[in-house]
This record gives sequence, C-alpha cells and structure tokens, in this order.
Amino acid sequence: MKLWQKDNTEVAQRIERFTVGRDTEFDGLLARYDVQGSIAHVTMLGEVGLMTPEESATAVAALQTIAQEIEAGTFGIEPGVEDVHSQVELLLTQRIGDTGKKIHSGRSRNDQVAVDIKLFLRAQLLELRDEARTLFDLLLEQSERLKDKLLPGYTHLQVAMPSSFGLWFGAYAESLTDDLDLLATAYRLCNRNPLGSGAGYGSSFPLSRTRTTELLGFDGLHHNAVYAQMSRGKTERTVAMALAGIGATLARLSMDCCLYLSQNFGFISFPPELTTGSSIMPHKKNPDVFELIRAKGNRLQALPNELALLLTNLPSGYHRDLQLTKEILFPALDELKQCLQMAHLMLSNVEIRGGILEEEKYKYVFSVEAVNALVNQGIPFREAYRQVGNDIEAGTFGWDLSKGLHHTHEGSLGNLGTEDIRARMNEVLGAFGNRQT
Amino acid sequence: MKLWQKDNTEVAQRIERFTVGRDTEFDGLLARYDVQGSIAHVTMLGEVGLMTPEESATAVAALQTIAQEIEAGTFGIEPGVEDVHSQVELLLTQRIGDTGKKIHSGRSRNDQVAVDIKLFLRAQLLELRDEARTLFDLLLEQSERLKDKLLPGYTHLQVAMPSSFGLWFGAYAESLTDDLDLLATAYRLCNRNPLGSGAGYGSSFPLSRTRTTELLGFDGLHHNAVYAQMSRGKTERTVAMALAGIGATLARLSMDCCLYLSQNFGFISFPPELTTGSSIMPHKKNPDVFELIRAKGNRLQALPNELALLLTNLPSGYHRDLQLTKEILFPALDELKQCLQMAHLMLSNVEIRGGILEEEKYKYVFSVEAVNALVNQGIPFREAYRQVGNDIEAGTFGWDLSKGLHHTHEGSLGNLGTEDIRARMNEVLGAFGNRQT
Amino acid sequence: MKLWQKDNTEVAQRIERFTVGRDTEFDGLLARYDVQGSIAHVTMLGEVGLMTPEESATAVAALQTIAQEIEAGTFGIEPGVEDVHSQVELLLTQRIGDTGKKIHSGRSRNDQVAVDIKLFLRAQLLELRDEARTLFDLLLEQSERLKDKLLPGYTHLQVAMPSSFGLWFGAYAESLTDDLDLLATAYRLCNRNPLGSGAGYGSSFPLSRTRTTELLGFDGLHHNAVYAQMSRGKTERTVAMALAGIGATLARLSMDCCLYLSQNFGFISFPPELTTGSSIMPHKKNPDVFELIRAKGNRLQALPNELALLLTNLPSGYHRDLQLTKEILFPALDELKQCLQMAHLMLSNVEIRGGILEEEKYKYVFSVEAVNALVNQGIPFREAYRQVGNDIEAGTFGWDLSKGLHHTHEGSLGNLGTEDIRARMNEVLGAFGNRQT
Amino acid sequence: MKLWQKDNTEVAQRIERFTVGRDTEFDGLLARYDVQGSIAHVTMLGEVGLMTPEESATAVAALQTIAQEIEAGTFGIEPGVEDVHSQVELLLTQRIGDTGKKIHSGRSRNDQVAVDIKLFLRAQLLELRDEARTLFDLLLEQSERLKDKLLPGYTHLQVAMPSSFGLWFGAYAESLTDDLDLLATAYRLCNRNPLGSGAGYGSSFPLSRTRTTELLGFDGLHHNAVYAQMSRGKTERTVAMALAGIGATLARLSMDCCLYLSQNFGFISFPPELTTGSSIMPHKKNPDVFELIRAKGNRLQALPNELALLLTNLPSGYHRDLQLTKEILFPALDELKQCLQMAHLMLSNVEIRGGILEEEKYKYVFSVEAVNALVNQGIPFREAYRQVGNDIEAGTFGWDLSKGLHHTHEGSLGNLGTEDIRARMNEVLGAFGNRQT
Repeated sequence: MKLWQKDNTEVAQRIERFTVGRDTEFDGLLARYDVQGSIAHVTMLGEVGLMTPEESATAVAALQTIAQEIEAGTFGIEPGVEDVHSQVELLLTQRIGDTGKKIHSGRSRNDQVAVDIKLFLRAQLLELRDEARTLFDLLLEQSERLKDKLLPGYTHLQVAMPSSFGLWFGAYAESLTDDLDLLATAYRLCNRNPLGSGAGYGSSFPLSRTRTTELLGFDGLHHNAVYAQMSRGKTERTVAMALAGIGATLARLSMDCCLYLSQNFGFISFPPELTTGSSIMPHKKNPDVFELIRAKGNRLQALPNELALLLTNLPSGYHRDLQLTKEILFPALDELKQCLQMAHLMLSNVEIRGGILEEEKYKYVFSVEAVNALVNQGIPFREAYRQVGNDIEAGTFGWDLSKGLHHTHEGSLGNLGTEDIRARMNEVLGAFGNRQT
Repeated sequence: MKLWQKDNTEVAQRIERFTVGRDTEFDGLLARYDVQGSIAHVTMLGEVGLMTPEESATAVAALQTIAQEIEAGTFGIEPGVEDVHSQVELLLTQRIGDTGKKIHSGRSRNDQVAVDIKLFLRAQLLELRDEARTLFDLLLEQSERLKDKLLPGYTHLQVAMPSSFGLWFGAYAESLTDDLDLLATAYRLCNRNPLGSGAGYGSSFPLSRTRTTELLGFDGLHHNAVYAQMSRGKTERTVAMALAGIGATLARLSMDCCLYLSQNFGFISFPPELTTGSSIMPHKKNPDVFELIRAKGNRLQALPNELALLLTNLPSGYHRDLQLTKEILFPALDELKQCLQMAHLMLSNVEIRGGILEEEKYKYVFSVEAVNALVNQGIPFREAYRQVGNDIEAGTFGWDLSKGLHHTHEGSLGNLGTEDIRARMNEVLGAFGNRQT
Repeated sequence: MKLWQKDNTEVAQRIERFTVGRDTEFDGLLARYDVQGSIAHVTMLGEVGLMTPEESATAVAALQTIAQEIEAGTFGIEPGVEDVHSQVELLLTQRIGDTGKKIHSGRSRNDQVAVDIKLFLRAQLLELRDEARTLFDLLLEQSERLKDKLLPGYTHLQVAMPSSFGLWFGAYAESLTDDLDLLATAYRLCNRNPLGSGAGYGSSFPLSRTRTTELLGFDGLHHNAVYAQMSRGKTERTVAMALAGIGATLARLSMDCCLYLSQNFGFISFPPELTTGSSIMPHKKNPDVFELIRAKGNRLQALPNELALLLTNLPSGYHRDLQLTKEILFPALDELKQCLQMAHLMLSNVEIRGGILEEEKYKYVFSVEAVNALVNQGIPFREAYRQVGNDIEAGTFGWDLSKGLHHTHEGSLGNLGTEDIRARMNEVLGAFGNRQT
Repeated sequence: MKLWQKDNTEVAQRIERFTVGRDTEFDGLLARYDVQGSIAHVTMLGEVGLMTPEESATAVAALQTIAQEIEAGTFGIEPGVEDVHSQVELLLTQRIGDTGKKIHSGRSRNDQVAVDIKLFLRAQLLELRDEARTLFDLLLEQSERLKDKLLPGYTHLQVAMPSSFGLWFGAYAESLTDDLDLLATAYRLCNRNPLGSGAGYGSSFPLSRTRTTELLGFDGLHHNAVYAQMSRGKTERTVAMALAGIGATLARLSMDCCLYLSQNFGFISFPPELTTGSSIMPHKKNPDVFELIRAKGNRLQALPNELALLLTNLPSGYHRDLQLTKEILFPALDELKQCLQMAHLMLSNVEIRGGILEEEKYKYVFSVEAVNALVNQGIPFREAYRQVGNDIEAGTFGWDLSKGLHHTHEGSLGNLGTEDIRARMNEVLGAFGNRQT
C-alpha cells in the first residue's frame, strides 16, 4: 500500500498498533516503579539545583498522590495515551502545570524505562525468593517426616539401590539452595541503578546519580552510561537464567511425581481433588498439575535462549527490539510463582505408600548391601561380588529387610544432613540482603 | 542385524565404539583431577579404618607417582583400556597389587566422575577469570587513554548523541564485572563436593565426606547424596550460562568492531597483520578475527540450551545421557579462553581515527547539547526543542566543536568512573576466594 | 496447605485456574474447526450405523446452526463451562437432547482437539502463504523497478563489489520461495487426519477414518493411532520451524533496512509517517517498525526450540504438557502475519537514494571490475590483481562510472532472473494444492 | 600484547591458528566435492570461451586425476597449505602450470565453498534417507510380526487402554515418513546451485550458471547472486531442522525403550551383549545404547537453534562467522547416521515379554472395552460408564482376556495399516528423485 493511495490516518493507526504492541498490558506492572523512580529523580533535581526546592517538593507531592492512586487501583491509562510514562506525565501536568514537564530534565525515556524494569524485577525476585523458601521448608519437613520410608533408587531407570523419601525430598530442597544462589546473582544485577544514563550516553546536566542510587535503595550504580544502557536485555536474560534454574528443578521433581504416580510405580498418591479423571476411562487419576508444572518449568528453560536470539548481534546502543523483553519475561515471573505455589499445594498433600521395597521386583536393590556385608565379613570385594552375582543368577538371592539399613555418612539414608542443608539455604538467602518483599 | 547372524565380536565392538564415543578425547583433561580425587578418597579411607594406615599410605604414594607422570606428560591410556579411570586403576594394581583394588571401597564410578568434573571445571573457571581480568585491565586502560576521543553514539542505529572511546571501552570493561559475578556463581557450584554419594544413593560404608571436602579444598559438600548426583548436568549447565554471559559481551564488542571497521564508519583500524585480504578484491581489510570471536561468542550462547535439551525430563538418578555433557562443554572452555586472548591481542593494537565528529553527517549528534544549552540560558525545554528542530529543518543547525563538552555526572563523557568500575571488579573477584590458577 | 485445613472449594478453584490456564483465550480460535470436525464425525457415525440416519441428520443440522452462530459472532463460552468443546456439547444437548451426547461415540477429547488444531493450522498456513506471496510480489516489483539503482555490496561488512537494489530486493523475494517450500512441508503435516485415534490407541468402534478424512478435505490419514497422537507437538513444532524460516528472512531484511537507514549508509529513507522521532533529539528518524519486525522475526526463530524443550523426553502417549503448545504457537501465527503486512507497508513506501556509488568511499567497489577488465585485455589475473592493488596503494585507483557495468550471467546485476524466480515461486505454491483461504 | 613488542611471526601464527580453526578437519570431507565443482566450472569455462578448449580439457583431466587420488585415499593437505581448496590449486599448478590458475576465473572462494557444501550435504542426506529407510523397514516388519502382542497404552503415564507392539512399532515407522518429508525439503534446498554467484554479487564474466547446474545434476539454480550467498547458513539450518526431526523420533523411541526395559515395566529385554552391567551392582542390565541415542537425538534437536544464534542479525553479505557452520553441522550428520544404525541393531534383537496384560495392575486397561461392550448391548454411555466405574470402585471389575479385542478401524490394534504406511513412505521417498547414494 502506497501512502498516497490511502487515508494516512489509517496508516498511522496501523503503525501505532504495531509499535505499541502489548506494552499497555505490561505497563500496568511498571506504574508504581515508574512513580518511585520519578520521585527519586525529582528529589535529586531539587538538590542539585535543576529544579527549585519548591518545584521539587510540589512534584514529589503530586507523584506521591499518584502512587497512592496506583496502590488504590484508581490509576489507569486513558484512551489515546501511549503508555504508563505518558499517563503519569499527563496527570502531573494537569495537576501542577509546567513544573510537571520539568521532571524530565536530564532523563530520557530509555533510562526511565530501564530503572522501572530494574525496580520491578528486584521486587519480583524477592517474591520468588519467598515462594521458593516456602517450598524449601515443606520439602525439608517432608524429608524429615518420611526419612524411614524406603523406595528404590534408580540408575539408568533400572532398579539400583535403596533410597528413601527422606533422601528424595531432601535432594529437591538442596537443589533449591543452588537455584537461589543463581537467583541472588540475578538480583544483584537488578539492584544496580541505570538512572541518569539518559539515552545511553549521559548528558551535560549536573545530575547526581549517586543520590538517586541511594534514594532508590540500589546496591550501587551501573557506572558507565553506555553500559547502563547495555544492561537492558542482559538483566532480563540473567533473570531468565535464574528462572530457568528453578524451572528445571520443578520440572524434574514433577517428572518424578508423574512416574511415581503411574501404576507401574505406585509410590505416591494424592487426594482425588488434586488429580483429574477421564471422560472415557473411569479408573484414571491423572497428575495434570504436575504435568503442567513440568511443562511450564520446561518453557521457563527456553526463556534465556529466546532473549539471546532477540539480542544477539545487535550493536551497542538502544534498539526498539528491547521492547519485547517485557512480553517475553514478565508473564514468566508469574508462571513460576504459580508453579512454586502449586508444587507446594500438591506436596503438602502427597500420600506415601509403605512397604515398597518388600515387592519382589525390588529385591535386587539390596545386592550392593549384600556385597558390602560380605566385604565387612572379610571377603574380598571381587569374591563377594561374584558370590552375590551367582545367587542372583541362580534365583536364590534374598535379603532380610528386617535387618534394616545402616547408612551413616553425610547425606546418606541414615544421616540426611537436614540442618546442613538449612544452613546452606540461610547462607544463600543472606546474599539478598535483608530486603523484604 | 540379528546377533546370531553375525560375529558377536563385531557387534560388541560396534557397541563399545558407540558407547565410549569421544570419552577418551576428554578423559585426558580429567586425569590429574581423577588422581587428586583418589588421593583424597584413599587418605580418608585410611583415616576411617576402611584401609589400614599402611595400605592407605602405599596407595597415596603410588597415586602421587601417577600424578607426576601426568604432569610430565608420560601418562597415557593404553589400547584396550576403556577410560582414564580404568587406566589409573590398572597402573595401581600393577604397581601395588590388591591394595590398588581397595581404593574403590565406598566409591562408585558416578561420584568419581562427578568429583573429577567439579575439580576440572573449578580450575578452568579460575583460568577464565584470569583471562577475563586481563582483558578487563586492557579495556579500562584504553578507556582512560582514549577518554577524549569522541565518536557518535547511536540509538536505533541512528546518529544520536556524542559518545567517546572512553565510554565505549569502559562499557565493555564494566560488562565483564557482571559477567564475572555470574562466573563466580558457577564457580561456587563447582566448588562443592559430590564425592561419597556413590551411585547417587550413598552407601553403608562409614565414609567421612567432610574429610574429603577438606582435603580437596572444596567450599562445602553437596550434602544430600541424591542431590549430589543431580548436580551432574546442572553444574555443567550453570557453567555454560556463565560462559554464555561472557560470550555475549565479546560478541557484541566484536559486532561493534566489525561495524566501526566498515568503510561506512571508519572509526577504527588495525595493523595489516591483524586483518585479512581477499583473493579477488585488492582493497579489502577484513575483520575475520572479530567475526570469529562474534561467531564463537554466539555459539557459546547456545550452550545452556543444548545442555537443557539433553537433561530435560530425565527423572532423577544417573543416566548415561550425562556422558555427552563433556563433549558439549569441555571444548567451549577452551574456545572462550582463545576468544578472550584474541580480543586482547586485537584491542591492544587498535588504532583510533581522530576528528570523527567533525564530519558533516554527525553534526546532529549535538542537537541535544544545543537544546540543553538553550535550556541553561533559561529557555523552556519545549521552546528550545522547537528552535533546534527548526534550525535542523532549515539546514541552519550548527555546533561549535571547539566549545567542548562538559559532561560531569557519574559515568558520563567527562567522568568515566574508572576507579569505581575497578573497585566493582575487585569486589566480584573476591567471590572467587583467594584461590590461584 | 493441607486439604483438611482449608475449604476444599478454594483448592478446587486453584487447581482449575491452574489447569485451565489460558485455554479459554485460544479456544475461541478453535470453535469453528471444532464444529467442522464434529459434523464430519457425526456424518460418518450415521453412515457406519453408530447413529441412526435421523440422529445423525439432526445433530449435523444443530451443529451447522452453531457454526453459523460462530461465524456471526454470537457464540461464546458461558461462565462455568470449561472449554469450547464443552460449550458446543452443552448447546447440542440443550437443543437436541440425548442425541447430542451420542456424538462422542468413538471419539476422545484427545483426537477431537488434535483434529481441531490440524484444521486451524491448515487454515492459518494458507493465510500466511497468501501474505508471503503478497510481499513476494512487491519485492519482485521493486527489484525490477530499481534494477539500475546501484549500491555497494558488502562482505565482512567491508565495501566489496557493486550490487543493486534490483539484486537486493530480488534476493529477499527468492528467499521467500524456499521459505514457502518449508511452509508447504508443515502444511502437508497439518493436512493429515488424526480423528478416530481416540485417546491414542483407537477403539473397538467400527469407525471409518477414511470417510472423515474425505469429509474434512485432508490429504490423507495419520494411519497409526499411536502416531496420530504422537503428531501432537510434532505438528506444532514443524509449523514453528516454517514460521522461523520466514521470520529469519524478515529479520535479516529488517537488519539491512535499519543499517541502510542509518546516516552512515543513507541508502534508503521513508516518509515521516513510517518512522518515529525522539523526545529529546529533534533530528531523529527511527526505524522502529523494522526493529520490531526484526525482533519478532527473531522471537519466531526461538519457537521451535521452545516446543522442543516442552516435548523432549516425554514417553509416547498423551501428556497434559501438550496443552501449552497452543499458547506458544497460536499467538506467533498472528505475529508473523502482522510482520509480513508491515514489511509490505514499509517497502511499498521506501525511497531510494540515487548516485550512491559516486561517493568517494565506495570507489574500491570497482576494483574487481578493474582487474577483470585488464584480464579481458589479455593480462594474466595475477598481474592484473597486482596492478590494481598498486593503484589502490598509491591512491591513484579510479573507475569511470559512466562506462556502466556489463554483468550478464544468470542472477547478476544485468540479468536478475525475475521470471525464473517467479516460476520457482509458482512451483512451490503448487505444493499447497489449489486450496484457498 | 602490542605488535611491536613481539615477534610478528608469532602473532601471525596465532591469528592463523585462530582463523583456520577446525577447518582442516572438515575440509577433508569436502575434497571430492570441491574437485567435482571445479570440473563443472572448468568445463563451462571452456564452453563459454573463458578458457580455450585445450586448457579446459587439460584442467579437467588433471582434476579427474586428483579426484581419483581422493577416492584412493592418497590425497592430503600438505603442511603449510591453508585448506583443501588451496591444496587442489597447488597440485593443479604443479601439474599443469598456469592453466591451473585460470580455473578461478569467474569464481570466488565464497561460491566455491558454497557449492562444495551443497554437494556434500546433498550426498549426506541421501545416506541418511537410506539409513532411515532401513530402520523404517525393520520397524514395519516388527510391527507386523508382533501385532498380536499386547501392552498397556498410557496417557498421562497412567495405564489407559490396550495397545500392542504392532501399534507401537508402527507408530515410529510412520513417524519416519513425516521426518523424511522434512528431510526431502532440506534436500531440495541443498539441490540448488550457488556456483557463479562469486563473492555474492556475481561478476562481469559471461558465465553459464545454467550449464554448471546441469553438469552438477542440481535441480535448479539459486538464481539471484545475493540470495545464493544468503543460502549459506540457511541451507545448513534447514538441514539441521531435518536432522532434529529424526533425532526427536529416535529420542522418544529410546525413552520408551528405557522405560520398557525398567523393572517397573519389564516389557522388553535385550541379549546381554547389547546392555551393560554395573561395577558395583551385579544385577544391572543398563540400556546405555538407548540412553546415548536419546542424548544424541536431543543434542540434534539443539542444532537449529545453535545455527540460528550464529546467523541472527547478520546483515546480508558474507561474514566469516559462516565458517563455524561446518563444525556445528558436519559431525551431527555422522552422529545421526550412527544413531539410526544402532537403533536398527538394538531393535533387530529386541525380545518381547508375553502376557503383559494378564498382570493385575493392568486390568483397568479394559475399562473402556467394558463400557463400550455395554453400550453395544444398548445401555446408554453415561449409564455404562457409571456401572463400570462402580465395579472398579467396588473392586469387582474384571475382564475376560480370552474374548480378545475386536478393533477394526484404520490404524487400530486389529488393522495396522502397514501397507498404507509403506505407500506413504514411498510417496515421500519419491520427493528425493531417483538419485542414489
């Protein structure tokens, strides 16, 4: 379509629809942080003399009112207003006149959005930390409660050695400690201030970026203005890596649960409210919740790559491509939160089958125990292995379950190391500082 | 092919070739760490009474001899021996007889390989830290040296505002600080001991995993035996994320260099030894080195996803699939090292064109300066913007370069924050502890 | 949360919200195809005797009424109804009583959804074919129109040899021919009937799958019932591959446009309605539309991997994980359609700068011409290359643009092969059969 | 390192090592195709008058000798020679003098490598077609042979409905038909001639690209010279998509086999030569071959993305980055070939357990049969479902296996559609033309 063949208004609308995209959807999430960033900026402008103290105070007060409206849910983007930043500007101008326009001195849309996203992600990661911590506590609790309940441990999906629900739950708890270490790394990257970098090259205004850093409670600055801009996309991707880490843990946990719930394992079950039936098979109890946690966890694993493809080979400097990071990353934060909550709901209600290892098909799970027992009686390992192998071959292998298992080393069946795992978690949580959600 | 139709020896060979794969290639890299792990294990076995003090001492001495042979380059895997672990075992048995076999008490191939990989990766990450640090130092040095050399800053690939080589080099230096924070996170995950977790479910032997942790200089244990096994794959993927982070920084730096070397920019050049010519075009000076750094950096960005696809939806417990993590990850470590070194070589020899901003096509780079100058004279921003816009429209816009630029805020043209960036790097390096390569 | 500690209704709602997810959003897209599939199924049931002719006729009539309501926009999913399939069933039962329930004989939710998705995707791919064809026509038209407008061709981002807008536009046109070949492959996979495979294992009902294949206009069946189920996910991923192919072409085209629009190239420009300005830089004309096409094209390239991660290592048989394929793939179809349309809008209005190659910095673009001219005069290539190289070194190289360029071979500057490219496109389009959107 | 601080020879060597990379490794694979391409080019040069008939004949003869040396294994790249193309050129010059140099008229390294890769990939895809066909034949054969052997079909990993080895093997056979359709698409892209496109912009030489297309047996040309160059990378990525498709099928098949070999399923087994044991567990029979096929299949699934990351956002025109496509793609071709062969070896020797469905835990697999049987007796579906559900609840549900199953529709237990699947495969194979490996 050539422009002169058409009403240019329609063209302008098509361009706007395409370029605005899903921004209005995600801008709502940024509103409170946008105002928070503006308050810090305006306060600083007043201090360095780019606004008079009165102007600054007036603007701060008006922004605080808007902040209250956002919390109260009475703030919205009016029709015809492009985004949340324009809406805030519009309200300010309506309410305090030309002073409202001055708040943009020494700020560009680029660093404004960058700081909004940092503040938003910082808050989101704290929520995720808390949800992960809640699941961690449950996993450790179940680990302790079920430490004597045995199940077969598998290697190559073959029955291998005795394991326990204590070990199994504890493993996923400990997995979360390392996942949160990665989350803390992403958090540190979110906790640095890009404000004042302007369009990515700073400006001739005598800003105090140190002051806004302090006002916004950031750990520090992205010092270099070009790097501050470059941290867009990189921050999102690092957060995505951290989400992927937790997602991978949840997905594997869910895969185990789906298997263990299968009639071929039958290790665990759930109240009927937590499983779903079939329209044509009256006997089915399907683990849909775990299948969806698995699927969502795996989708989270695809995130860092999706962002990498978006960013790869873009030269330095802002590009509009970065707009899409919001629609790629923001919904994922909520998805992960839901997955953590649903995993918690499910595992709070898991029922464990007793006596699993009494089943015939698991008897070889004790073959290593038998070999080790002979070794402890002084028989060389190779000979012990041969004897037990012969018994298995001949069908005469047996193991007296009532003798119990005496595993004592750190992290084994009889010594789960629960307190060590908890201590490790506390160490990792320390990396978030003492900031609360 | 049915087995009875063929010589089963040939079948056995095909199976072995397929299952061994490229292991012998990568096992060489693990040899020294395998011996190191064995020394710690054997020392501990002697202390807890699973070997006599004499047996333990004999085995340690023999292992130390092998360690020296490895360092001397006289160690190799003999034909018919499956892997490095078997080769070490064979030598031990030849040299100290049955005592050599006892060293496997309370250890399985799974935790043996897991600890080898942790030790290898830990050492590799320290080398990468050092290479990255060396490049960081150069970038900061060039940033300071060239702080007065201006170039246009771009947004949307459009000429936007004045930037400088000081800002540009400094940005990539600062980028490495956050990249090393992620590397340190991967390092911490490598620095935890899986030894003693056996095949993934621990054992009835009274091992002291705390002692081998101490002997191998690990920060701590993967406490839970099931989780220790689960950390295989996860460790590699987290390392891959860290490599991807540095790779992304190098790739973007290279993309900038390729652009800036293009005749359409002409900002930088290199001695002819560092560029390549064309067989049919006598005038070409191609930036092949940067193109390859870019390509390799982008390939590194694909690594975490490749590992994710390998690991996804595998239930807990060891699977042979994990073998491939070695051929996926190990070559990448060396690739990244080379890229860091080549980037250093190139940027040590970069030549900067002076007077770039004097070119006509960059004059609008000063439009924001002009607007701000008017604002500083008391003209409202909107009016100033209109005036400058009119001048541009009318073709009368100009800017007196000799007036200079007075950017003073943190991280701007006139205030690069070099020492702050250096301090941030030192803080990040602290996370590696004081371990040397 | 333990179930007995809470109102189970709330738990049930949380489970439902989590499992239903975004299904209602995407089910609207499937409604017309769901009814279409049901009409075919019911017609067949009547023919094979699983419904009486009267029952079948009644149900078909009622379904046709619902189809009209869907087209008229008066169909919607009522509150409390889980999905589109249940809504159709509800309407049927309300309108024709128990006969409405009989339509599910020999059908499961799995094959019902599978056939809906096939029909939906088949229609979507035809729309994409048409949009791509429209862009193709424009590209060829511009290629012919601008065949004499020269621009520098680059290798390694270095000025290399003369190229033309004719070649450049033509290249992207031809790229679409191969992209549509891949789209046709995905189309063929969508054009096979899974209906009648039930939950993935067929049934004891004497269905005629051949008949529903015919009624729904499929090319053929997914014969094997287990494979018919397995084609879920695989179909979506293959479609994603095809979208990624077109996305890659559009992204590269956009990257070229962003570069060519930069002041450092200045090859092309656009009416101001199609570019965007800057709030602080009065001179900016930013290519936001192309940046977003590039970003969306790159995001499409991430799709196949996202689906691979979802599906990897799931054993055969249905899993709830497959539900997410809808929210991953469906929005992408619309995104690509928009990108094709916006690329068309932009390139319809592109303005080309004349006389580009007259600029000093491009003169070496003719060095190969000069070498070849000497060769044509009988001077050996090596000697000619040396002479021209010397002239370049000495700064005496020149080329008389008025002599013109005489490139005659297939696909060169003077022989664009437009009709061959068009013929190739027609050949590829033939693979879609003669089905219209 | 500054150049003047060091011996520049060492620098040159470092640059060369870095830029040559692994090329020599992969160039060996291209040698025969390089000579084949040169013979066609030289023949054409003779015909269009760019060489005399005698020169052309001499060069062709010398090239044919080199071709024989390559087949005989006596060809190698001499030390100091950069790559296979230079080695061929060197030999020619040594043997036929200056005529050897003339063969490069109208050809650049870019189109030379491009045509080599097309010819190589074309041949490789035919080999893969044949290997896949061989596996397909085995799968169909096993499907027919084992059509009466029942096993449980699963949905959500829950026991669902009766399936059979006939259905299971047949499903993977049919999966290969669609995989080969995608392979054929990649093949068509490989089967187009880029030769004559020079460095990507054609040339002033009066080449006949139609003639080399004919001589090399290509289906047609990449007409546009710019597109011919752009097809580098795109071709490799499309091939990677096709490999990923087959890889996904093999990986899922392997996952099924690993599960079915687990003691918790026990559906299949293999002779001990084809499984591996454990050093500490005498009872283990591990499916390492399938685990590695699964892992390699999943790694293949990562390939297209790896190539996408390499190529994304590179503007049009050659970049050195493309060199890496060889080391990314070429080893994968061989990996897939091995996986297809190993899957064939394993499944030729699979042993099936009989009477699986007689086990108590599978009895509910017949619940749908029971419901349908009641329906066939005239009881409404809802009532039948309720009755069977009550029996299950009460523990009184049973099913007389001796009654057999009467599934008759297309693709069901009793009607596998083997000949239809075979016909579909033949149709797909037709897309490769009748070219032999």
